Amino acid sequence: MENLKIGVVGTGAIGREHIRRLSEKVSGCRIAAVSDINETAAGEVAEKYGAEFYKDSNELIRSKDVDAIVITAGDPAHASLCIAGLHAGKFIFCEKPLATEVPECEKIVQEEQKCGKRLLQVGFMRRYDPGYVEMKRLIRNGSIGTPLMVHACHRNMTHAPSMNSDLSIRNSGIHEIDIMRWLLEEDYDSCDVIIPKHNSHADPDMQDPQIMRLRTKSGVEIDVEIAQNSGYGYDIQCEVVGELGTIKLPDPAKVDKKIKGVHFVDVNPDWESRFSEAYEIELAKWVDEVKTGKVTGPSAWDGYMACLAADTLSRSRVDGERKKIIIPEKPALYI
Amino acid sequence: MENLKIGVVGTGAIGREHIRRLSEKVSGCRIAAVSDINETAAGEVAEKYGAEFYKDSNELIRSKDVDAIVITAGDPAHASLCIAGLHAGKFIFCEKPLATEVPECEKIVQEEQKCGKRLLQVGFMRRYDPGYVEMKRLIRNGSIGTPLMVHACHRNMTHAPSMNSDLSIRNSGIHEIDIMRWLLEEDYDSCDVIIPKHNSHADPDMQDPQIMRLRTKSGVEIDVEIAQNSGYGYDIQCEVVGELGTIKLPDPAKVDKKIKGVHFVDVNPDWESRFSEAYEIELAKWVDEVKTGKVTGPSAWDGYMACLAADTLSRSRVDGERKKIIIPEKPALYI
Amino acid sequence: MENLKIGVVGTGAIGREHIRRLSEKVSGCRIAAVSDINETAAGEVAEKYGAEFYKDSNELIRSKDVDAIVITAGDPAHASLCIAGLHAGKFIFCEKPLATEVPECEKIVQEEQKCGKRLLQVGFMRRYDPGYVEMKRLIRNGSIGTPLMVHACHRNMTHAPSMNSDLSIRNSGIHEIDIMRWLLEEDYDSCDVIIPKHNSHADPDMQDPQIMRLRTKSGVEIDVEIAQNSGYGYDIQCEVVGELGTIKLPDPAKVDKKIKGVHFVDVNPDWESRFSEAYEIELAKWVDEVKTGKVTGPSAWDGYMACLAADTLSRSRVDGERKKIIIPEKPALYI
Amino acid sequence: MENLKIGVVGTGAIGREHIRRLSEKVSGCRIAAVSDINETAAGEVAEKYGAEFYKDSNELIRSKDVDAIVITAGDPAHASLCIAGLHAGKFIFCEKPLATEVPECEKIVQEEQKCGKRLLQVGFMRRYDPGYVEMKRLIRNGSIGTPLMVHACHRNMTHAPSMNSDLSIRNSGIHEIDIMRWLLEEDYDSCDVIIPKHNSHADPDMQDPQIMRLRTKSGVEIDVEIAQNSGYGYDIQCEVVGELGTIKLPDPAKVDKKIKGVHFVDVNPDWESRFSEAYEIELAKWVDEVKTGKVTGPSAWDGYMACLAADTLSRSRVDGERKKIIIPEKPALYI
Repeated sequence: MENLKIGVVGTGAIGREHIRRLSEKVSGCRIAAVSDINETAAGEVAEKYGAEFYKDSNELIRSKDVDAIVITAGDPAHASLCIAGLHAGKFIFCEKPLATEVPECEKIVQEEQKCGKRLLQVGFMRRYDPGYVEMKRLIRNGSIGTPLMVHACHRNMTHAPSMNSDLSIRNSGIHEIDIMRWLLEEDYDSCDVIIPKHNSHADPDMQDPQIMRLRTKSGVEIDVEIAQNSGYGYDIQCEVVGELGTIKLPDPAKVDKKIKGVHFVDVNPDWESRFSEAYEIELAKWVDEVKTGKVTGPSAWDGYMACLAADTLSRSRVDGERKKIIIPEKPALYI
Repeated sequence: MENLKIGVVGTGAIGREHIRRLSEKVSGCRIAAVSDINETAAGEVAEKYGAEFYKDSNELIRSKDVDAIVITAGDPAHASLCIAGLHAGKFIFCEKPLATEVPECEKIVQEEQKCGKRLLQVGFMRRYDPGYVEMKRLIRNGSIGTPLMVHACHRNMTHAPSMNSDLSIRNSGIHEIDIMRWLLEEDYDSCDVIIPKHNSHADPDMQDPQIMRLRTKSGVEIDVEIAQNSGYGYDIQCEVVGELGTIKLPDPAKVDKKIKGVHFVDVNPDWESRFSEAYEIELAKWVDEVKTGKVTGPSAWDGYMACLAADTLSRSRVDGERKKIIIPEKPALYI
Repeated sequence: MENLKIGVVGTGAIGREHIRRLSEKVSGCRIAAVSDINETAAGEVAEKYGAEFYKDSNELIRSKDVDAIVITAGDPAHASLCIAGLHAGKFIFCEKPLATEVPECEKIVQEEQKCGKRLLQVGFMRRYDPGYVEMKRLIRNGSIGTPLMVHACHRNMTHAPSMNSDLSIRNSGIHEIDIMRWLLEEDYDSCDVIIPKHNSHADPDMQDPQIMRLRTKSGVEIDVEIAQNSGYGYDIQCEVVGELGTIKLPDPAKVDKKIKGVHFVDVNPDWESRFSEAYEIELAKWVDEVKTGKVTGPSAWDGYMACLAADTLSRSRVDGERKKIIIPEKPALYI
Repeated sequence: MENLKIGVVGTGAIGREHIRRLSEKVSGCRIAAVSDINETAAGEVAEKYGAEFYKDSNELIRSKDVDAIVITAGDPAHASLCIAGLHAGKFIFCEKPLATEVPECEKIVQEEQKCGKRLLQVGFMRRYDPGYVEMKRLIRNGSIGTPLMVHACHRNMTHAPSMNSDLSIRNSGIHEIDIMRWLLEEDYDSCDVIIPKHNSHADPDMQDPQIMRLRTKSGVEIDVEIAQNSGYGYDIQCEVVGELGTIKLPDPAKVDKKIKGVHFVDVNPDWESRFSEAYEIELAKWVDEVKTGKVTGPSAWDGYMACLAADTLSRSRVDGERKKIIIPEKPALYI
């Protein structure tokens, strides 16, 4: 079968990582075209990978030389690029979040329905992490009985300059929002945000850490600590407590060392090293599925649901009130 | 130095365990007298340990042949027995909780102040568990910087017939309430209780599990899952998250096994096996301190503070509202 | 760049696994031709992957439609197939062991030298396992100082019908022989085999378990338990003890469970699930390197050295004597 | 029951530790008398604990004011003190080793037989470590089937000035010799010592590390790494491999920390912190048993057997030959 010709819009950090993975790690595809508002960067990437450089990303999206689109542009550009891709009738892989605003997500979902089939996949890579996959399998096969609670945390080492209280939920927390919904196979009922003592290593006007509390329709209670300044590394923990027992996301396998009085393993410094395997599996599966004409990964609806919960959490964070998450009826396309 | 003559009021399960420990594991003391509303049981214990049996517990408390009192009677009897002990001017070790009602605690605290010195110690044995002791040392020496959050859980295997939604907080949860206050060296500001999905192995009218949320004066956020039906064992977890890193209570050391496809350790079945070392250290230190005339363990004030928080949590559980924990001024005796 | 056309000789279990990996997981190649003494099996594989079926494996090896050869035939056929591949001047990936007899290895090494460049790679996949790779990095960067000892074990769940005392070393143990030499970057000086108590689950005439003892030129002492009947799973352990500390091969990351009184993770049932990641990395890197014309993986010399040590160990097992491992001068091609 | 009056001969480091334990941690006894060749040291201890100071240790042993003897003098003095104690007909707790020379052990065993009952216990405290106790229970109840092999290590942080190649076996290694024999409930058949690469942090004329190899009568193969210069801490590991699975000695429970990029626990710095619980249990049980007139701890025969194996290992270390361990018939007293 011929290689899938991929056009990438956005050649920043995550864009270049995905291009590298698609070129070196994923079989059955090649980078055919790239575009970025930073034209120099995009041009360099184009040259390095033998891809076409497009000044206009919409032109790239419509190009006959591009079979499928990867969107790794800045978050605010996601929505319009997704819609352009849908209009072009092409398969799209859009990095999370699907969009920054709820109405944008609604628009995307409407446009995709007009296409008559699922074309869009959102980059919630955790669904491909072998640890989460195994947890879902164990929940499904009844190993721990009915889930009752989830205790989780998402810790970054230090916060990026652009990070703030709101993005901490909408950008970091959104991974947790999606993965819990996927693990438990349930929608959310309500949520709020708890603000613990301020970490003095965070900016004074930034709420860090935060605790997101989510409750599913059936009553499963989820608490997720979101910290941008753990001080010690990038650390993702997730324990699902069921009626019969508990399961916990494994830490990555690391060489066990005993040196200078301590018995230790290293902690991952960042999300890229932590989830590199998940990213590879995600992209490889996406390429395979696009070639068969049917994608099964996180849908535009999933992206919308995550955005809706993140938006509700953010509003709760501001006014301190517990809020219902109002979910519209699910269109047939996503059932 | 002569052996401390101990009179024990209450020869039920925990009473007999303490009598066994004081007789076999703790040096410098002997069981001189016992009393219980179940006179047969008390008589048997008296005979086994060569102690005097008292029909009337108040007589035991006042007896010249008794240097110090251990109260392991039923919870509702604690308050009056403590007060009788204080009136007799004797050192008292009272199992937790100090009393079941806040006003009773207030009364005890008032009576002890009249004695002019601390005579009463409450049986919060976790303060003697080597794991918690080490955690407090690490917090104090700044290993993890300022504490910001605590994530904890307290899980029993299956609930006792007498257990109910309220006792789950007042009897199990009270250990957590005391230990967090002791670890963080701070009083509480406010609290509420979250009710997750109901565990079908619990009685239908019993809320199980529950999540206690406590906030300290300085803003440290504590969440403690309290479950009476974990299904798998007795399990106590505690993670303190600070500005620089985290520390976690160690699981008990267990032989590591690889058999039939699994790599495992056993989980403790109950609190007695989990905290037997803590109980021994607690009682040994109490006997030593009583003999020097000065006790430093958990005070009547600590028992009062724990009861106050448990009471506030219980009320929050009923009406679902977050509540302030109103703390009176600390008397000089307890500073 | 065009896809590398691979011809596979041997479509048994490991052959089909490699074909699947090369087809689905590795980019830049395709299965062009297959051959096997079981013609039906080979024919089915050919059809499934759109490859050409060859009745005569030598024809496959010489075919212009085959760029590179993968040898996954039975162990005794390795040598002649390798030599045929070298005569055809093609890159060859030969599953371990390189050959079953030392003189065959010598012949292969001689033939490869005539080619003037390295064409052959031996399938010691562990060198690509991230755990071993990290251990080598840590040894190299001096984290544990000079290595002094290695304690290791290699345990299979239950032995295959074809397994025997000799193959336990030559087939299972050979992985250990190669990986220790690679980790320590040293040749062996001497060896012997210790025969512990017989496992009654092994055939009466099969020595199981065995302990291989190897000593490197510089004096590092290695002990490796080889067991074909662990009873509980497939388990590979490796601890390198240095002057400053120790490092240990990580166990695979597994979901941590607490159910029915035990806290556990699953143990891998077999080598395939344990080393699947290593196999993928190995083959992907081999394809990439073949396309650049220069392979750097385990060489024919490495295969020879492993065979030589395995042969010496096997002879020691029979007569119980400690033996020197006599190593000829390394040809320039392998330096 | 009255307190057991204990006379301690030897107030060096371990002597003072035992005196502290017997005084503070063990009920039912008191330190009645002390003696040491360093009279100043002994005098200070006598004063601190309200004990009688004896210039002549034999006088202490014979004193009517001493019910039982604890021998913590230098190793070479053990034998004559034990014999004096036996002649006095008193219960004796002698720190390991029982004696430094095999004939001395034989003499002690002969003398004890004349007493007609077991009076002597050797300080192999590991038999009281909860981890080893649980391992023995699991072996006995068939959890891992018939034991086949033991892999163990005994690592000290750095060697004491008095340490040498011989003492490394006779003083450190003797713990391993005893505990394996106790765990497996079997005598040894043969042994040798492997000398790995020299650790440059050890004295040039000291063989460190060493690997002791012991084989039991039934064929269980034991390898124990003995290292005096681990560089990172005091570390005791023990894995028993059976026909059905394996069990491993637990590491001591430690607070789990995540700070500055690493996830770690502390390693014990020395044997005293590692085995403090075992020492307490050992002495408490000894006091209890002496008071009942029947001791069941490690016997003079066990001390003799350990000395015999250590002696054979030491001779094997010198000449490099594997040696039989010749065991005389066990006297009725020890069956």
